[in-house]
Amino acid sequence: MQLPKISFRTVPCEADIEAVRSIVTSPGVFRPDEIGIAIELIEERLRRGIASGYHFVFAEENGAPIGYTCFGPIACTVASYDLFWIVVAKQYNGIKIGSALMVETENQIRTMGGKRVYIETSSRSDYGAARRFYQRHGYAVEATIKNFYNDNDDMVVFSKELP
Amino acid sequence: MQLPKISFRTVPCEADIEAVRSIVTSPGVFRPDEIGIAIELIEERLRRGIASGYHFVFAEENGAPIGYTCFGPIACTVASYDLFWIVVAKQYNGIKIGSALMVETENQIRTMGGKRVYIETSSRSDYGAARRFYQRHGYAVEATIKNFYNDNDDMVVFSKELP
Repeated sequence: MQLPKISFRTVPCEADIEAVRSIVTSPGVFRPDEIGIAIELIEERLRRGIASGYHFVFAEENGAPIGYTCFGPIACTVASYDLFWIVVAKQYNGIKIGSALMVETENQIRTMGGKRVYIETSSRSDYGAARRFYQRHGYAVEATIKNFYNDNDDMVVFSKELP
Repeated sequence: MQLPKISFRTVPCEADIEAVRSIVTSPGVFRPDEIGIAIELIEERLRRGIASGYHFVFAEENGAPIGYTCFGPIACTVASYDLFWIVVAKQYNGIKIGSALMVETENQIRTMGGKRVYIETSSRSDYGAARRFYQRHGYAVEATIKNFYNDNDDMVVFSKELP
C-alpha cells in the first residue's frame, strides 16, 4: 500500500457524522452501543459547538476522513483532558495514522492549555494492542478500577503529562 | 431544630432547576463553574428525559426540595453507576438528610440493575468531611489520580459494591 498523504482538520462538519460511523464501524471491535456513543459526540459537537466540550481531529486523505480523535477538557479540572476516541479505518491500519493523530491531538491539547491527558480503556485481552499503543506514546497506567465495565473487565486509566 | 418529615421524589420538574441552584449554592463551597454544571445536568434531564442518562432523587420537606442526588449509568459499562452530586441545603445539615438520600439513591440504582457505585471527589482538605461521609456509607478508595483537578489536587475514586 502506498503511504497516503495525510492532512488534519479540526473544524467538524455535517458529513463527519457518517464519517465517524464508518470509521468506528470498520474495525469490527466496537459494540452498537459504543458506536452510538461515538456518533452522539460528533452530533453534540455540531449542535452545540465548542460549548459541547468535544473537540475533534480528523486525519484526511484527499479530503476524506480516514481516522479521528475526539477529546475534551475535563469539567472541574484546571488543565486535564480526556481522550475519548482514537480510531483509524481498518483499511489504513499499520501505517502510523494513529501515531500521527496522537501527536496532532496532543499538540491541540497543549495549545488549548492542557497539561495532562487521560485515556480510559479496558483490561480485556482484545484491548492489548490499544494499551501497547498508548504506552509507546508515553502513557503510563495511573489507576485500575476493578470490574468497572463488567465482572472481570477492569477500567485501566492511562495518563501522560504533556511536556 | 425539629426533625423535618422527609419524602423522596424521582421525577424532576421545571421548578427543580431553581431548587438545584439554591441547594448547590447554599453550602458556599462550590465554584460558579461547578454550580453551572449542576444546573446543566437537571436542564439536560428535563430536555431529554431518561435518555439524558441523569437520574435524580430529591428529598423534600412539605413538597420543597432540601437536598438531592444526581446519578446515572456509566456509558459502556454493564452495571456501574456514577454518583455525580449529593448535596443538602446548608440549613438542613447535621440531621442525616444526606444519609437518607444516599440510602434511597442506592435503592434506586439497585432497582435499575446497578451493581457498583462510583464517586469521584477531591483530595483537598476541605473535602475531608465528604470523604468521611462516603466511607461511613461503605465506600472505599478504589484509585487516586494524581494532580487530576489541578497541581496537588488529586481525584479520589470511591467505590461500593451494592449488596
